Order: sequence, then C-alpha cells, then structure tokens
Amino acid sequence: MSELKIDTRLWSSKARNLSPYVPGEQPQHDNLCKLNTNENPFPPSPKVGEAIAKVLEQQASDLRLYPAPESDDLRSALAETYHLDTNQVFVGNGSDEVLALVFASFFLKERPILAPDISYSFYPVYAQTFGVDLVQIALEEDFSIDPDAYRQPCSGIIIANPNAPTGLLLSLADIRKLASEHTNAVIVIDEAYIDFAQIKEGDVDAQVSAVSLINEYDNILVTQTFSKSRSLAGLRVGMAFGNASLIEALTRMKNSFNSFPLDKLAQAGATASVLDADYFAQMREQVIDLRQSLTAELTALDYNVLPSHANFVFARPKGGNASAVASALREQGIIVRHFNKPRINEYLRITVGTAEQNQRLITALKALEADAEIATI
Amino acid sequence: MSELKIDTRLWSSKARNLSPYVPGEQPQHDNLCKLNTNENPFPPSPKVGEAIAKVLEQQASDLRLYPAPESDDLRSALAETYHLDTNQVFVGNGSDEVLALVFASFFLKERPILAPDISYSFYPVYAQTFGVDLVQIALEEDFSIDPDAYRQPCSGIIIANPNAPTGLLLSLADIRKLASEHTNAVIVIDEAYIDFAQIKEGDVDAQVSAVSLINEYDNILVTQTFSKSRSLAGLRVGMAFGNASLIEALTRMKNSFNSFPLDKLAQAGATASVLDADYFAQMREQVIDLRQSLTAELTALDYNVLPSHANFVFARPKGGNASAVASALREQGIIVRHFNKPRINEYLRITVGTAEQNQRLITALKALEADAEIATI
Repeated sequence: MSELKIDTRLWSSKARNLSPYVPGEQPQHDNLCKLNTNENPFPPSPKVGEAIAKVLEQQASDLRLYPAPESDDLRSALAETYHLDTNQVFVGNGSDEVLALVFASFFLKERPILAPDISYSFYPVYAQTFGVDLVQIALEEDFSIDPDAYRQPCSGIIIANPNAPTGLLLSLADIRKLASEHTNAVIVIDEAYIDFAQIKEGDVDAQVSAVSLINEYDNILVTQTFSKSRSLAGLRVGMAFGNASLIEALTRMKNSFNSFPLDKLAQAGATASVLDADYFAQMREQVIDLRQSLTAELTALDYNVLPSHANFVFARPKGGNASAVASALREQGIIVRHFNKPRINEYLRITVGTAEQNQRLITALKALEADAEIATI
Repeated sequence: MSELKIDTRLWSSKARNLSPYVPGEQPQHDNLCKLNTNENPFPPSPKVGEAIAKVLEQQASDLRLYPAPESDDLRSALAETYHLDTNQVFVGNGSDEVLALVFASFFLKERPILAPDISYSFYPVYAQTFGVDLVQIALEEDFSIDPDAYRQPCSGIIIANPNAPTGLLLSLADIRKLASEHTNAVIVIDEAYIDFAQIKEGDVDAQVSAVSLINEYDNILVTQTFSKSRSLAGLRVGMAFGNASLIEALTRMKNSFNSFPLDKLAQAGATASVLDADYFAQMREQVIDLRQSLTAELTALDYNVLPSHANFVFARPKGGNASAVASALREQGIIVRHFNKPRINEYLRITVGTAEQNQRLITALKALEADAEIATI
C-alpha cells in the first residue's frame, strides 16, 4: 500500500481527520517469543473447542441462520457467574467494540471526558471518532491515579484498571469516590486485566473488580474482555456490566450499528469458557505466579518493575535504554512493546509468558548486560 | 425488560434519539418453516466446517492470539475470485458493519444522501446514527428505480441491488449513469442478494454485479455478504469492493472503531467458502430454480409476484390481504415477513425455502384460499 497514492476527495471530514489505533504487531512466523500484545501464554479452556466442535457437528447447517442477536445464552452465563441480572450484562465483538459503543452512548460533545494521560491508546482514537473532547489528567510521579485530580466538569471518565501499560491498580475506595463526585457522568472502568489483580499475596478472590459496585452506583460501567484471562483474543468477545439503563443504551446503540456482532461459534465458545470456572481460576493463578517470578528476575537484573496487577510488567532497564533493549531483543526473536512517548519511553511493557518464554527473555537480557554498547546507552 | 423503567439521564443525545433497526425475528423452536429473514435454505459448503475444525484441531491454543486484523487470507481469496487487487477489498463483521463504516467514511452532514423510499430499513437507522440526512426517492409505480429521479445534490447514494424487499434489479447501465452524474458522491451498491440475480434464463454468469465497474468508476463502492448466497449468516462476514482509496478510508474508520472485527474461525470459514467455487455455483442455481417454481406456484394462486432476482419473492395476494395471510400462516408455523408500511402493506416478502418448505407454504396458502374469511378481507 505504500506506493499507492491515496485520494481523499470522496472521504468524509471525519475519515480525513482520523488517527487510527495501531495495535501491537502480529507477526506470523514461528519460534517467535511474542511478549508484545498481552495475550495469555496458556490456551483457552478445552471446553471452548469442544463447544464449537459440537456446533459444527450437530448444527453445521445452522450456520446458514442468523445468530441470537443479543447473545442470550452467553449473557445468562455471565450474569450467573457475576451474580447480576441478565439486563445488567452487554456483550460485543471484543471490548474494543464495546468501548466504541460506550463512547457513542454516554459521552457528550458539550462536556469533555477525562482519562489518564498514560493509558490505553485507543481512548483518544475513540474520542476523535465520536467527536468528544478528551482531557488527559496526568498520572502522579509514581504513575498512580489521584481521584482528586479528576474534580472538573465532565460527561464521563474512563480509566483502565489495572491501568495499561503501567499495571497499577486503583482501589475500589477511589472508584467509589469518582462515582460519588460525578453523579452526572458515566464512570467507565475498563477491567481488561482485572482477573490478574490481587490485593495481597495468595488472595486472588479479594474484591478488586468494580462489578461489585454496580448495584450501588448507577453511573459505574465496567468493561471486561475474553482476550486476556480467558485466552480468547482470537474469538473477539468483550462485555460490559452496569445498571440496566446503561446496558439498554448500549443495546440500542449496537442495534443502530450492527445487530449481530457475535457469530454463533463465538457465542458458543465464550459461553463454554464462562462455565468452566475451575480452568479459569487455575489459569489466573498460573499467570500471577509467573508474573511474580518474572518480576523477581527482572528486579535481580536491576530493572525497576512497577507492581503489576496485569498479565504484563512495566519495567525500566537500569540506564533507561528501553528502546535499545527492545531492538536488541527483536534481533533474537523476542518482541516486547516500547512506547516512544513522554514519561514512559524509558520503560518496556513485557507480557508475562510461559516459564520457558520468560526464561528465554531473562537469558537474553543477561547476555545484553554483558554487551557494553547497550549497557551504556 | 418491559417492566423495567429506563432512566435516560446519563445517555448521550444521540443514544436518546435512536430508533434502532429491528431485525426479522429469530424464533428458536423446531418444525418452524422460517421464511422471514432471507437465509439460504441450504447449508454452507462442507469445506467451511472442515476449515474451522482444522483450526480447532491444529491450532486451538492459537485462539489465545489476536486474529489477523486485516483478514489478509480472506481478502486475498476474495480478490482472486473477483479479479481485483487485495487493496480493493474490505471485510467486516457482516455487511451491516461494513455499511455502518460506509456511512461514517463517506457521507456528509452538509449534503444529504439519497436512497429509495422502499429499501433496506437499516439505511435510515444508519443515517440517524451518523447524523446525515437521508432523502428518500420514491420508487416508480412498478417499484423500479429511475436514475433520473436522483438528479439532486448529495454526498452519496445507497441502493440495494437487487432491491429489498422488492427483489427488482437495477441494470449496470443505470448504475453507470448514477456514477457518471454524481462524480463527487459515493455510489454504494448494496449487493446482498446479487448472486441470485440473472439477466436471462439459465445465464447466471451474466454481468449483473457492479463489481465489474469499480476499475472504471472511482466512486462506486459495492457491498456484499456471506449471509445469503454463501449460507453463512451465522458467521457474520461481509465485504466491500471499490477503488483502493475508498477501501483505505474504510480501513482507517474500522481501525478507529474496532481493529479486529473478524475472529480467527470466521476468517478461516469464510476463506474456505470463497475457495469452494463449485459448491457456490451449484447452490446459487438451486435457489434460483426454487425461486422460479415458487413464483410459478404463487402466480397460479393469483398472487402478483414481482420479478425477483433475490432469494425471496415479493408477492401480493389476490385482494391484498397480506397481513391476514401472514397471521394465518404463522398459526401454522410458517413465518413470512409483512411490512406495515405505505405502498407495500399489501405484499408479503417470502424467503425461497427448500422444495419441501415451499410446498408446505403453497399447501397452506391453498387451504387459506378455501377459507372465506381470509379470502374476502
């Protein structure tokens, strides 16, 4: 496409002014140690493949029929798992689609929305797509979020929790504060990584998710995804939990855009994933354990590793030569993510891999340490 | 949900003002003769299920990884089949999503878009969603489209061809005329049903698709779907063909909304469908044959059947008591679509079913004929 001269004559002004989101690269070749897009290193529950295979065996010809437009079975399974009513659950084609519909449904042109200056880089893209002003609120020096900094008129606040790429967790007390102080704004808590959070060692079931608040606050909307903790990035399923009136707005917006975003196979596979609670719990713990050992090994190499509640770590190599380290790793087939942005350009975001992948990374970093050129950049 | 009191306090004005699309119902019970949503009566190519099963068997753990964001293999297969460059092909989550992105990418608030007054009822919904004015141009008395009626300033024209629910076909000569007369507007030809069109008996390969025009007119964009002729409504795949600059706008809009709309399984299944050209050709012909016999039988029952180029017929019962006929059929488990709208409320839109389904319909209609109450309404 690079040689193609693009003619924008027939484009809408909206199309001309877009700066699309650039996802982390998805190279397809083998033997790559892919630690750049926060995918789960473990496969999804075997029940997922079984459920999809069952649809193919027993009802392959049903692929000719439209799927359930509101994904009823999947929403019921989620409602039961999260102790909610079905009308408090919305699902979409990945949490990216859910977030797009959130921007269209709740945020206003008249009052800005607020988001941390360092966060998921799709938020400013959505703001542009839907013509709302996004005011970026600076993270504190230690990359934490201070809810007091959000005391200004707005139509919404969107916070990734745990935040990306920092991995830091905002407390439920702080989320309550935001919701109480902005009763006329929708507080969106994007919990893509929440299942990897833990308040204290060994306590994976402590209350960290704002889902526990939605019966109390009618203005809290929580988004989650099957792409991380459920190992289903390839199936494109995300969800939102909130007051039934918020969910109704999302449903109407969806049905004004695309009535059937989840195909039959994705609905069946995602439902099977939700119902396999044991597998889910086991995988969460494994990733959390691997994160802890990765953190320890990076720390031993003098990396400054932020306390992560996600399936990645955000780490600064001694000397801050993150860009050079990323390039050197790439030459060895290890891909991590470097953001060339103010405040964070000395850090690397490294996805927690399998024990073997993490070891390959650590071995490579140790070899780099011996490389004078990198070490002194 | 009917008892729930919806509180719109936190909704955007856009969300408050939506009138969402209402798809044809998808009842789940058995033994229903479902002739209401223009699904294909035949299953998809067996290669589709095989390709998906292969992904599950050989790469189930790859579901943990994000899919190819631009669906490269699928777009290549489509490009090859339609003799285009890959950069002239766009794919999305059903042609509904593709159409939504079309509205956002090309249609302007400053100049209206034009569409037939009787057409796919999602178009006015999209117009509302994206804040563009839609001017409805009346079909002729015989439900045909007169391109001369579109001679007015606009930023775009959208025409379903064959049109729904009429089934009538607009000629390529008329499409050329529209494109030539509106060089500053994008002419969208929504070819959801084009694969069932034929110019003359037995000549299914005659040029009826505007895909043959896109190298000649930089302002023609053609949308198609896997939901009808490829029997994959359950898989959610649609596509657009056009000049590379138009496709680039759609790609950017997609990547400002949702980077990964097609999951891994849908990409694999759709690609297998495209590659099985023999099955596709055979299914098209079968549906066309069944349409012809259904048309003959309805005509024999004194129905006025419009000359259909789709996988449905639009037919007026003698006496015009369409609503009563639809209700009476429903009592027998046969569902057809009735639109309670001006000009077409005396018609039924009936999906072409299997020979068995069509026979069940005809038998029921013959019984109704004997029912004096229905016959004289």
